[in-house]
Amino acid sequence: MMDFPEITPPDYRAAAAAQRRQDILTKPTGALGRLEDLSVWVSGCQGLCPPKQFEHARVVVFAGDHGVARTGVSAYPPEVTAQMVANIDAGGAAINVLAGIAGASVRVVDIAVDSDEPLSEAIGAHKVRRSSGNIAVEDALSADEVIAALEAGRQLADDEVDAGADLLIAGDMGIGNTTAATALIATLTDTEPVAVVGRGTGIDDAAWVRKTAAVRDAMFRARHHRADPVALLRTCGGADLAAMAGFCAQAAVRRTPLLLDGVVVTAAALVADRLAPGARAWWQAGHRSTEPAHTLALAHLELVPIIDLGLRLGEGTGAAVALPVLRAAVATLASMATFEGAGVSDRAPD
Amino acid sequence: MMDFPEITPPDYRAAAAAQRRQDILTKPTGALGRLEDLSVWVSGCQGLCPPKQFEHARVVVFAGDHGVARTGVSAYPPEVTAQMVANIDAGGAAINVLAGIAGASVRVVDIAVDSDEPLSEAIGAHKVRRSSGNIAVEDALSADEVIAALEAGRQLADDEVDAGADLLIAGDMGIGNTTAATALIATLTDTEPVAVVGRGTGIDDAAWVRKTAAVRDAMFRARHHRADPVALLRTCGGADLAAMAGFCAQAAVRRTPLLLDGVVVTAAALVADRLAPGARAWWQAGHRSTEPAHTLALAHLELVPIIDLGLRLGEGTGAAVALPVLRAAVATLASMATFEGAGVSDRAPD
Repeated sequence: MMDFPEITPPDYRAAAAAQRRQDILTKPTGALGRLEDLSVWVSGCQGLCPPKQFEHARVVVFAGDHGVARTGVSAYPPEVTAQMVANIDAGGAAINVLAGIAGASVRVVDIAVDSDEPLSEAIGAHKVRRSSGNIAVEDALSADEVIAALEAGRQLADDEVDAGADLLIAGDMGIGNTTAATALIATLTDTEPVAVVGRGTGIDDAAWVRKTAAVRDAMFRARHHRADPVALLRTCGGADLAAMAGFCAQAAVRRTPLLLDGVVVTAAALVADRLAPGARAWWQAGHRSTEPAHTLALAHLELVPIIDLGLRLGEGTGAAVALPVLRAAVATLASMATFEGAGVSDRAPD
Repeated sequence: MMDFPEITPPDYRAAAAAQRRQDILTKPTGALGRLEDLSVWVSGCQGLCPPKQFEHARVVVFAGDHGVARTGVSAYPPEVTAQMVANIDAGGAAINVLAGIAGASVRVVDIAVDSDEPLSEAIGAHKVRRSSGNIAVEDALSADEVIAALEAGRQLADDEVDAGADLLIAGDMGIGNTTAATALIATLTDTEPVAVVGRGTGIDDAAWVRKTAAVRDAMFRARHHRADPVALLRTCGGADLAAMAGFCAQAAVRRTPLLLDGVVVTAAALVADRLAPGARAWWQAGHRSTEPAHTLALAHLELVPIIDLGLRLGEGTGAAVALPVLRAAVATLASMATFEGAGVSDRAPD
């Protein structure tokens, strides 16, 4: 069994001080809208008011294949997973470019890519297995593999925080991974597959029918495990999803703020908040993707996405586009003048 | 009379090349959502594919007082306008901090602040008058003043583009300016004032009633000028709004992309698109504010805001928060690997 220590919430004193400080800055009360809420959240996570700007924002992309991808649920062949790991490692993928704009660095890890050898020793240091099982007909993982994958995610979060990361982003790369993510979300929220299966990377109607059938079959196999997140990861998840869940939970254990990305990361987060209740207090939703299951999972986590721009790429890209907004929130609280300091008249008290 | 030359649209060849290039980058077709549209727009504006990253993004904040502010339509006293000009000049306002995060520089200009002397010669170089008139009972400006203010905005756009600006943001600062902006938008869109008057900087119910009455009275005075944008600026606008309109129109004349901010800038833009038809092709809406009139004006301009975070501050802040998203869009098109270049398998052709 995998146990996470009890999650303690962000520092409410720092958050309260941040709210008070927002109210004396040279702007109408509340006029920065969501930026004010985000700045208060960062203050709470850091236990500091004003908060510090993020200096070591870190994206970790979890790569893994899924047996179900061989059944025609994706618009792309499974070989693309390994090819994209190489592309991310070489700096050519969307996440590399978007992280660069956002001032974050990127690491890709091979958790379950369907290849004999990982691309490099570092990328493969946490590899659990070659591809997860086809969840339509078999368990994604053995019981031991679930634990190994959760432990890999936990270790990755620890390594990054120990190396100085002050903001974490989890990203995903894996052909077929939205099928497993949708099965997890639909099972945990008790939702009919037809209501939440999306178009993934851009599938046609025939592939959508195959994908929906696969999700339905996976949900049937997982039906007795709704209350057991570890068993869910085993029956209808995957090694990459389990590692992301461990990573998201451990970020909360380490009191480190984390931006969620799209439907795959958010599926893992939904599981992580069951494994480590309260962990979601340490997360913000970077964006809303076009996948119906993503909106459902965000609602269950009571998280409101920062941006909503129709992205459906994964890799951590939605979170990376949202990161400058979070930086903007921190900067206002840290650097704006106060009414008193700038000699600006405040409104009359109500 | 003030004439702008005919507006030519962005370069459709560069835009078409950008769309083709988005389709060969290592991601599913369309998976970057709105970022793809924005990258295509920037390519068209620049006449270049791939586009260049913005090197000299420039915010110009137009400051002006409004006689109507003396009638209790704002939560803040009119003196705040001049105090905030000083705050922006000193770098302490929200726009300074947010422009810093977005990699833009800020300039504040006194178009019609209610002070004897402008804060500095540079800030006052385009000053038209002390405060615009109280639009509830009198014209905001004389006919000559409208032309002078439009010319000030045109000159400011020319100066900034000549100095190297490759992206412009217009911002506003002025107690009472949302009252004039709302009167302009409601008149141009033939909308009842009660449907579009908002809370501005955070007014109570009694002030809202006063503000709505002022908008209604201004609209009555302007009722015969709906088809004449210059007369509208004179009767129910203001010098700052006229200058912003000249600035937005001239950005289009100079083929320079521009990000709109909140309700005040967008009111000016609505007028500018009448003065220089087609100018809106050179603009994007940075954000959606909480002011009802803003949503109405954006709909009339057929512009979809990039972010929607409940901001209601003005100064250019919403556009500044959106600028990193535009940078992200440019960066993906300019820097991502192609399927062929990265050796990644594309989907089978449909």
